[in-house]
Amino acid sequence: MRFLGRILPRNDFKRINGMKQTLKVVKIGGKLIENEALLNSFMDDFVEMKGPKILVHGGGNKATEVAGKLGFKTKMIDGRRITNKESMEVITMVYGGLLNKSIVAGLQAKKQNAIGLCGADGKVLISKKRENKEIDYGYVGDVVHVNINFIESLLKQNIVPVFSAISCTDGGMLLNTNGDSVASEITIAMSKTYETQLYYCSEKKGVLRDIEDDNSVITELNSENYKELIASKVITDGMLPKLHNCFEAISRGVSAVFLGDANLLKENVSHTKIVK
Amino acid sequence: MRFLGRILPRNDFKRINGMKQTLKVVKIGGKLIENEALLNSFMDDFVEMKGPKILVHGGGNKATEVAGKLGFKTKMIDGRRITNKESMEVITMVYGGLLNKSIVAGLQAKKQNAIGLCGADGKVLISKKRENKEIDYGYVGDVVHVNINFIESLLKQNIVPVFSAISCTDGGMLLNTNGDSVASEITIAMSKTYETQLYYCSEKKGVLRDIEDDNSVITELNSENYKELIASKVITDGMLPKLHNCFEAISRGVSAVFLGDANLLKENVSHTKIVK
Repeated sequence: MRFLGRILPRNDFKRINGMKQTLKVVKIGGKLIENEALLNSFMDDFVEMKGPKILVHGGGNKATEVAGKLGFKTKMIDGRRITNKESMEVITMVYGGLLNKSIVAGLQAKKQNAIGLCGADGKVLISKKRENKEIDYGYVGDVVHVNINFIESLLKQNIVPVFSAISCTDGGMLLNTNGDSVASEITIAMSKTYETQLYYCSEKKGVLRDIEDDNSVITELNSENYKELIASKVITDGMLPKLHNCFEAISRGVSAVFLGDANLLKENVSHTKIVK
Repeated sequence: MRFLGRILPRNDFKRINGMKQTLKVVKIGGKLIENEALLNSFMDDFVEMKGPKILVHGGGNKATEVAGKLGFKTKMIDGRRITNKESMEVITMVYGGLLNKSIVAGLQAKKQNAIGLCGADGKVLISKKRENKEIDYGYVGDVVHVNINFIESLLKQNIVPVFSAISCTDGGMLLNTNGDSVASEITIAMSKTYETQLYYCSEKKGVLRDIEDDNSVITELNSENYKELIASKVITDGMLPKLHNCFEAISRGVSAVFLGDANLLKENVSHTKIVK
């Protein structure tokens, strides 16, 4: 990399003139992963994206499908999955093994060096088991620490970290973890040394003015118009936790959050951009 | 680390006075992994072991069990498993996910930093699909390249690489790979910069003079007495491929190979040591 006439190692560039290098963290959901053609097209876009980047993936229905075939019933309370020991084993197999390694191999096929990680690997995502007096959710946890030095050592080697949504307690217990939160916690933590952007790819093209109309995407949200849209009930219950999570990321150092569908990384595709 | 009165970073120590630092590579088989108490005791010994180290694990019957429950039949030809697409998916789930991540989490629980890897991660084990005109073994490959720089970057951070026996072609295809060969190929490759030792932990205490007598362990084998023992038919067919593999490692730069059971890493336990 050439700067002021001299060659700099890529790594030094990050802090030149106090400017931070941009790191992009992309989260893909279960439905995208289940559609082979869509996933392949997404990965082409992801590989094209310049600069340091991180991929986080959910698991979707594959774990439920495998659990069912293995004879384990998925227990739900109030619409939330209860992760017992057998479920956690299936999640480790499907998210941490099959999906994670297939995505890494898929990126390698496209000449993008990558590495698959769960929270236990290099103690990269340390979590705390979720305590709830009324319902025991089982092997479920929330991220309390991100090992940014380890992530940075991979980025410096131009290796893309690919995270499954599995974290690990300090005592070495694997825990099922919300994929959106994994992505936001990583991005927030990395904001210490990078200018960070967070991309959520799901089924919707972004935040919609009219839930029935896929073309009613709200282009930009900031804390001002966000409040107005809640007050005027344009943004309703279903979207609130996700957007709360996005604004939380913004308030903790993330520059921008982008919401869109599988084509979010392509240019000139409608999406919602969330800023301060 | 103190040397000649000055503090040296650990990494510099490796080449002081031309002496190479010792790297230990340990392979554990399927049966050890299946026995929780035995695995736990082995991991205590492994964590105790000083200096840079690498763990390689097989998978044993767990993959066959899971495949059976998922309704996939394991196809065998001449006693060899045929790895079709579904089998490879199960292997990726069970070896690359469940077993690999459980071992990593188990090591973290014992305060040993570790990372789980398959060949696709960081392009660490590149293989070639096995070609056979008579039988198509399917998704099976042999290691042709080990990314020693990447392994070294982990060892320098005091992170133990934990390998499942899955490699990856240059084109990004995951392949089932013989665990013993994975261990020996890694050890051979790392001999470039380290003095290396290879440990195979299986059910037997070592090479036996009398297959019926577990206490008849041959303490040391070198290329001289190895030939004699073959000539006198003390070493027979069953053991020949494994020992051939060991002497191949020795001839390609590995200092010593140790064969023993789950207690191999304990002191004063009978085992077979193979040297030049």
